[in-house]
Amino acid sequence: MTDSLALAYARKLIACESITPATGAVFDALEEMLTPLGFAVDRFLSGEDDQNPAHGAPVENLFAIRKSSGRHFAFAGHLDVVPPGDGWGSDPFVPEIRGDLLHGRGAVDMKGSIAAFVAALHSIPEDAGTISLIITGDEEGPAIYGTRALIDHMHARQSVPDFCLVGEPTSVHRLGDMMKIGRRGSVNMWISVAGTQGHVAYPHLADNPIPRLIKILAEIEAIHLDDGTDWFQPSNIEITDMQVGNKATNVIPAKAEARLSIRFNDLQQGDALVERLRTLIEAGGGTLTAMISGEAFLTPPGELSAAISEAVEAVTGIQPEASTTGGTSDARFLTRVCPVVEFGLCNATMHKLDEAVALADLEALTEIYRRVALKILG
Amino acid sequence: MTDSLALAYARKLIACESITPATGAVFDALEEMLTPLGFAVDRFLSGEDDQNPAHGAPVENLFAIRKSSGRHFAFAGHLDVVPPGDGWGSDPFVPEIRGDLLHGRGAVDMKGSIAAFVAALHSIPEDAGTISLIITGDEEGPAIYGTRALIDHMHARQSVPDFCLVGEPTSVHRLGDMMKIGRRGSVNMWISVAGTQGHVAYPHLADNPIPRLIKILAEIEAIHLDDGTDWFQPSNIEITDMQVGNKATNVIPAKAEARLSIRFNDLQQGDALVERLRTLIEAGGGTLTAMISGEAFLTPPGELSAAISEAVEAVTGIQPEASTTGGTSDARFLTRVCPVVEFGLCNATMHKLDEAVALADLEALTEIYRRVALKILG
Repeated sequence: MTDSLALAYARKLIACESITPATGAVFDALEEMLTPLGFAVDRFLSGEDDQNPAHGAPVENLFAIRKSSGRHFAFAGHLDVVPPGDGWGSDPFVPEIRGDLLHGRGAVDMKGSIAAFVAALHSIPEDAGTISLIITGDEEGPAIYGTRALIDHMHARQSVPDFCLVGEPTSVHRLGDMMKIGRRGSVNMWISVAGTQGHVAYPHLADNPIPRLIKILAEIEAIHLDDGTDWFQPSNIEITDMQVGNKATNVIPAKAEARLSIRFNDLQQGDALVERLRTLIEAGGGTLTAMISGEAFLTPPGELSAAISEAVEAVTGIQPEASTTGGTSDARFLTRVCPVVEFGLCNATMHKLDEAVALADLEALTEIYRRVALKILG
Repeated sequence: MTDSLALAYARKLIACESITPATGAVFDALEEMLTPLGFAVDRFLSGEDDQNPAHGAPVENLFAIRKSSGRHFAFAGHLDVVPPGDGWGSDPFVPEIRGDLLHGRGAVDMKGSIAAFVAALHSIPEDAGTISLIITGDEEGPAIYGTRALIDHMHARQSVPDFCLVGEPTSVHRLGDMMKIGRRGSVNMWISVAGTQGHVAYPHLADNPIPRLIKILAEIEAIHLDDGTDWFQPSNIEITDMQVGNKATNVIPAKAEARLSIRFNDLQQGDALVERLRTLIEAGGGTLTAMISGEAFLTPPGELSAAISEAVEAVTGIQPEASTTGGTSDARFLTRVCPVVEFGLCNATMHKLDEAVALADLEALTEIYRRVALKILG
């Protein structure tokens, strides 16, 4: 029995070790798959001048396009993977089939999806419309020089898609049970309250910062941000840490700190949340440091999500839930360009030891992607 | 110039190294001073069977009494000292006069006071009344086998004093400016609130303990215990620590903890405070561990404090403030037996490097102690 197209492509991509940030061989492999299909492939490095090791530079990016008349549909994804960790049942960078599963780092997140993209392209006629692939080498890292650079590149080439499907592993229990039409925003905040150290027996000579911090945190706990929307759960504030670190029972400490995390829907904006909390915290005698990880975004249910839902039902017999839950992905950048929906493999083994994809899912996903592209291109 | 009695005695006691718990030579020295003055001296070891190193056993104790008719007045104190530490200007256990100061560990806390006790006894006639010395070898340590054992001993001998002066260094800026007529009680409490760890993106799957702890702490902050009394400042609750120790910004922690310290006056009782806080904390979903270090106690101003005040004014020209501030001492035990007031040397160098007593203070203190004893014995 010979490998299917999707399986053969998945094997090739997994065999190219590409721990984030990815460059080189794994992109060579993808380029070799796309060129015979009539794609023009642009590859470029981003962030080459950035010496800050926290920025994960340089990053390789690939934009492949096969132009035609009519709409422009894009598949988007990443070829970098997270480090494998110790304890795999087989070499994480040597694809291995055991039973009905293909094992290897990136099997579901998301070299398997990219293999399905390319396999689907074999059955999409050149005259169906314009198709592109937006593939970065840094989605798992800081993502500063990844999809953002690809968007700049597409704008420069005047090749911005009309619709984009991101192949992140969105399925939960079985292929097809969930797609993601948006994502909550996220901001972390650090609160610090200063005081004056002293002895508990002489509190008038000290200034305990803890009561001020408690008052601030109680006020934050009392905040009701919103009731959610049709597509989003209510925005939520979680206080995730409190820290004084005072070992001595008879000492009033000089400083008290706390940290909180807000996951917010598209009724909120990161900057406005920071300013609201800053006003409250400073009024209470504290200071605030904030880091916004991402704004909330939504592609309201419409043509793209309907096409995915129809294709999923035709292939798997179930309808995907349109969810906005979970962590961040490059859809947060692509949403600025066009309608974006994420749909892909089951995420149970993503980022874990013995990451694996069901062979049948690779074939089903290829067919779903083919149907979605043809439907959107009309 | 020959040494005064008080200086000679202070030199002898300092020369006997007696880091807590004290036994042996320093008690031999004191016994040799007392026997010629007509005192019957009982010495005994306590805690000999206690193998727990945290209990600081065994401890030597000394009870000396010179019986007569009439009232029974006691001097109380300790011969143990805290470790000297490194960096002294002279050997801490070789008494050395530099200028008008006698240096040595225990100079003010409180071998100097005990030297003044004994020097004063030379000028108190045997028929003035019953006089005793209640001297332990463990006041600076856990104090489990020290003054408590001496109180048992006095009860067993039916030799309980009517009034007791504890010679702790209570003076602050100059000899005579402060005596202590009581002390606040102290209790430390540890609060723990349990929850269920989870991801901040899925708060419904987790149970954050921090909001419950904040609510508990806010309720504790709102407690007003009392307004103080004529002799005590208001009881005070200080939250001295908060601890979650959650390093991950995207994790809801499983546990949140806090610690508080209550210094309370004689309107409060340790047990009742613990139960009051326990009820509040358990209602809020937390658990409490408490350790009562000592109850508040007071010898209301009366005959003993008046006698001290009069003697201090006669000798120094100032009147001592009757205070209840500061840390713990053996007066907390002796208060159960009879009226107790603490009065002694200046505490500026107590427990520090180069502990020293002014030579003039040794003489003045001797005279003050003599006057107090004679006044009380009538």
